[in-house]
Amino acid sequence: MANPADLEKVLGVHLKDPSLLKQALIHDSYVNENPRLVPTSNERFEFLGDAVLNLIFADKLLKDFPQASEGELTHFRSLMVRGSTLARLAKDIKLGDYLYLGRGEELSGGRSKSTNLAAALEAVIAAIYLDRGMAVARNLVLSLFHRELEKLGGQEALIDYKSQLQHIIQARQQETPSYRRVAATGPDHEPHFTAEAMVGDTVLGEGSGKSKKEAEATAAKAALEKLKASFT
Amino acid sequence: MANPADLEKVLGVHLKDPSLLKQALIHDSYVNENPRLVPTSNERFEFLGDAVLNLIFADKLLKDFPQASEGELTHFRSLMVRGSTLARLAKDIKLGDYLYLGRGEELSGGRSKSTNLAAALEAVIAAIYLDRGMAVARNLVLSLFHRELEKLGGQEALIDYKSQLQHIIQARQQETPSYRRVAATGPDHEPHFTAEAMVGDTVLGEGSGKSKKEAEATAAKAALEKLKASFT
Repeated sequence: MANPADLEKVLGVHLKDPSLLKQALIHDSYVNENPRLVPTSNERFEFLGDAVLNLIFADKLLKDFPQASEGELTHFRSLMVRGSTLARLAKDIKLGDYLYLGRGEELSGGRSKSTNLAAALEAVIAAIYLDRGMAVARNLVLSLFHRELEKLGGQEALIDYKSQLQHIIQARQQETPSYRRVAATGPDHEPHFTAEAMVGDTVLGEGSGKSKKEAEATAAKAALEKLKASFT
Repeated sequence: MANPADLEKVLGVHLKDPSLLKQALIHDSYVNENPRLVPTSNERFEFLGDAVLNLIFADKLLKDFPQASEGELTHFRSLMVRGSTLARLAKDIKLGDYLYLGRGEELSGGRSKSTNLAAALEAVIAAIYLDRGMAVARNLVLSLFHRELEKLGGQEALIDYKSQLQHIIQARQQETPSYRRVAATGPDHEPHFTAEAMVGDTVLGEGSGKSKKEAEATAAKAALEKLKASFT
């Protein structure tokens, strides 16, 4: 079993009270077999770590996706905090090596079980939050989830800007926005499209992309941003 | 409709950017009817406020109930953040008076609908968190929920200390703790019991209460605290 002190190095976080980190690594099976040594497992920390992660991502996604609906934000966050994502990130830092497991759990492959890994990652985040506060916990989480957040950038395509624009324009002036293709340039294997979102003869926003669909969505997004800026 | 500035006074919190508080009070029905005036409803804020509340209570309950299991903590938190509790607290501060509603929602009694009130309270907490930070949001929440938290104190009786002690003692020394009644004092209408939690002849902890059950639970709790202190 690896030394928890090495985990601090991997995470780049030093805890004032290292017993909190140890507590975060204790699986319930270890408590049952070693009652003389340790009082409780990491389950209470898991409860707190889950809440810490949920707030960090609610805050981050609200700011990163100013156009996303509540439903879209909820979906994006679930991609971050779901068990399979947590277990994968825990594997990346070899968190399984640091777990305190009972003998039976060890023999049945407990070090690589996704549920154990996801729970331990939440518990470790809770320990850091308790020991070093929210700012340090947030920095660690955003660094650990850096690539996951990058992948989400691509998910932005899922935000339905055209529907959002239509909803606002119809409520405002009982009209439906239309899209005009401005230009299609570039070679056949790498075309580039430009589009405008219009109401009647008025151009609301312009956008471009690798497909007609992407150009129109980008134009709708630009129109929404202009409309929202005009309210403030 | 009441002025949002008065709500700041009621809450005892001054926002640097009052537009955030206004945003928190905008019901979706208002956006649909007034698209010229406002860009979006409070639904995104509700998403953030929910996460803020969940973390504040996870942190608070973990510290207030050091003996509670993860399941008990989850239950206690749900009593705090469930819709009916939020709506009741929102009514206490007359939050309904400040809502921006569409005409149809207004006519159908939207100012006193529990779902609207609960959502607006979450959104207001998000606005304060965004504008003033976690410490101010936490103080407000703990003050708003002061009586709810006091009621939870009574729920401590729900924590099953006797089972927890039995679990540890059985794993540790293959024995079962027993309880000895030390004294029953006081008048008939106000009896006072004292009990000891034992393993064999050893007294692990002592407790008292208004019933035999309460005295034994308190003794088990004292025993657990001594055992846990001896680990550190």
